[in-house]
Amino acid sequence: MNIAIAQSGGPTAAINSSLCGVFDEAEKYNEIDRIYGSLNGIEGILNDNLIDLKEVLITENDKQLLKRTPSTVLGSCRFKLKNSSDDDSDYKRITQTFAKYDIKAFFYIGGNDSMDTVMKLDAYFRENHIDIKVVGVPKTIDNDLPLTDHTPGFGSAAKYVATTLQEIIRDSRVYSIPSVTIVEIMGRDAGWLTASSCVLRANGEPAPHLIYLPESDFSQERYLEDVKRISERYKAVIVAVSEGIDCLASRSEATDAFGHKYLSGVGKYLEELTRDHMGCKVRSIELNVMQRCGSHIASLTDLDEAWRIGAAAVNEALKYGGSGIMMGFRRISNNPYRVGIVPLDVRECANKAKYFPKEWITPEGNNVTIDALNYFLPLIQGEPKIDYRNGIPVHFRLDQ
Amino acid sequence: MNIAIAQSGGPTAAINSSLCGVFDEAEKYNEIDRIYGSLNGIEGILNDNLIDLKEVLITENDKQLLKRTPSTVLGSCRFKLKNSSDDDSDYKRITQTFAKYDIKAFFYIGGNDSMDTVMKLDAYFRENHIDIKVVGVPKTIDNDLPLTDHTPGFGSAAKYVATTLQEIIRDSRVYSIPSVTIVEIMGRDAGWLTASSCVLRANGEPAPHLIYLPESDFSQERYLEDVKRISERYKAVIVAVSEGIDCLASRSEATDAFGHKYLSGVGKYLEELTRDHMGCKVRSIELNVMQRCGSHIASLTDLDEAWRIGAAAVNEALKYGGSGIMMGFRRISNNPYRVGIVPLDVRECANKAKYFPKEWITPEGNNVTIDALNYFLPLIQGEPKIDYRNGIPVHFRLDQ
Repeated sequence: MNIAIAQSGGPTAAINSSLCGVFDEAEKYNEIDRIYGSLNGIEGILNDNLIDLKEVLITENDKQLLKRTPSTVLGSCRFKLKNSSDDDSDYKRITQTFAKYDIKAFFYIGGNDSMDTVMKLDAYFRENHIDIKVVGVPKTIDNDLPLTDHTPGFGSAAKYVATTLQEIIRDSRVYSIPSVTIVEIMGRDAGWLTASSCVLRANGEPAPHLIYLPESDFSQERYLEDVKRISERYKAVIVAVSEGIDCLASRSEATDAFGHKYLSGVGKYLEELTRDHMGCKVRSIELNVMQRCGSHIASLTDLDEAWRIGAAAVNEALKYGGSGIMMGFRRISNNPYRVGIVPLDVRECANKAKYFPKEWITPEGNNVTIDALNYFLPLIQGEPKIDYRNGIPVHFRLDQ
Repeated sequence: MNIAIAQSGGPTAAINSSLCGVFDEAEKYNEIDRIYGSLNGIEGILNDNLIDLKEVLITENDKQLLKRTPSTVLGSCRFKLKNSSDDDSDYKRITQTFAKYDIKAFFYIGGNDSMDTVMKLDAYFRENHIDIKVVGVPKTIDNDLPLTDHTPGFGSAAKYVATTLQEIIRDSRVYSIPSVTIVEIMGRDAGWLTASSCVLRANGEPAPHLIYLPESDFSQERYLEDVKRISERYKAVIVAVSEGIDCLASRSEATDAFGHKYLSGVGKYLEELTRDHMGCKVRSIELNVMQRCGSHIASLTDLDEAWRIGAAAVNEALKYGGSGIMMGFRRISNNPYRVGIVPLDVRECANKAKYFPKEWITPEGNNVTIDALNYFLPLIQGEPKIDYRNGIPVHFRLDQ
């Protein structure tokens, strides 16, 4: 028998590590012959576009290198399966490909949308008495998958954000004039990654002084009051803001003091708003895709866990016959940090989101609590050893 | 006798290493008692705002930590001295402060503008027969100081750009649809840092496929032809563009297909231009201040050289009586890489810029040659050992 792995959704620094975890564990099973990689997520299964992973991951070094390489080595997709009751043609093509390659288990590494595919495929196979296990391996820098304590990819993104933010803080403090620096962090609906910027406090760093998440109500008036109050104490005010905060509703009509429309993006918007009202030096910085693919400053805890949860998915399917599940983390303790890996019903995970807890947001809605800090800290610990060639980190590359 | 050090201009990852180099070398001189740090550049001298560096840099570990901490620990300024023939009041205040603290040598770490201060102070002291040595220690991520082979701070910025760009390349390749990614890199007048993105070629990476510098004429028509041609071969086109390329002249009148004015910044401008003409997925990314303060991925060669050139400045002033000079690098060989440190007449450096050589730009004006690659590669070699606390790099901090 053979198995297949695919990757889906937006890139992270840890999604290839999960692939390695699945691959490495599957290699230990004598009954598994070939381990296929499906190119561009489920599209590779639909279009019969598979590669034999044993032909590309040959040495232990290949696996270790891929573990530390960001993004999805097999490519990704944004593909939503129709309901099989409406149109089962894609299901039939998938079943054909699986039959053609004798694939008996399929591991899908992805986020909320990908778990929808896991759920639907598993239901279809069960209904039609087809014995193919379908197991989801979670990933997303947004950390918004339900039931699991956290999600692979998040810890590395959080470590990138903290490291970069600390450097921006140093940079912001050079001149004697007052300033406000607004750092826009990914997270359209969930504020986990923005909230994680609080980890700098563990080292005595008071910045970011203000943290705004989509989970709390945003008011421009309170924001401006907050910035003014902080600027009385700190020369260089640092604001961490989630791209998804609700200040955009009124944006299309909003104009600055000169009657110009505000530019797009929360960071730019707040930059102009702040400049109009504060009159000091203001800049906004977008951490952009670097925060999701910054593998050179990945969290080793994250990469190791991503590998382990991939391996656990194989055992769940092969040893215990699990299917229609998403693997998840259960936190046992914070100090020492210990987590277990558990199978979760994918129907409870797919198409659902886990938001940052309201009780971890301060009453003023402009910062997070010590509980949040304690939650985040273990996830950013440790650094992978990076191989450099010509002064540049070496990446695993499948093609040009 | 005592000496003073100050830092000026924009932050880099290496400017604190040069401070350590001056401090560490000065400590070896028995005749030097106190080593003062002037806060916010020359403004600290003008305002009598000095600190005793021996009180803050106590252990070897303090120095090593500061060496790896980005930005300017003493703060910075953008202060231009008037000509003393027009108004010598600032010169008198500076002389008073130096007399008050028995400062006999002043080391100014900075870029083109700071060398103007070195030049003017030295001339004033000579004219008035005041025996105070003034020596410039170069720094700028722009690498545009004349006469020196390269400038401390540049190698670390180049290593950050290469490392980050490689991750953006991985990120850009995940989906099956064609795309263009435009990465805007610092350099208003000189394209050195943007050109340095060619180092990825040393590891067989074909991207960035197009590199545009301020030193070559930019034509929108040729740019669009370039992108079209590259997109026929590569699914994910990567463009590295200097913030200073000359496509802005016509920008104020330029509108997109919908009659909207283009947004500010070269990256955003090219993003909209490309989207209008290519119709594919296009995004632009600004590396922003991270490229100048990204010390967690600094070049060890750069940090070591920054230290050495600071130390050499002390010897030049104290052993050889040098003044009115800027220290510079002279490259002896590329392979093995060897550089010497030499004193340069600051009058030949101040207020002047060194541009990227035209002969290192390809005839099409959209890339750089192998000579550029050979020049850049030695500068990004080696990685400093980073201390982490709570998963975050430790920075040296003077205050909150």
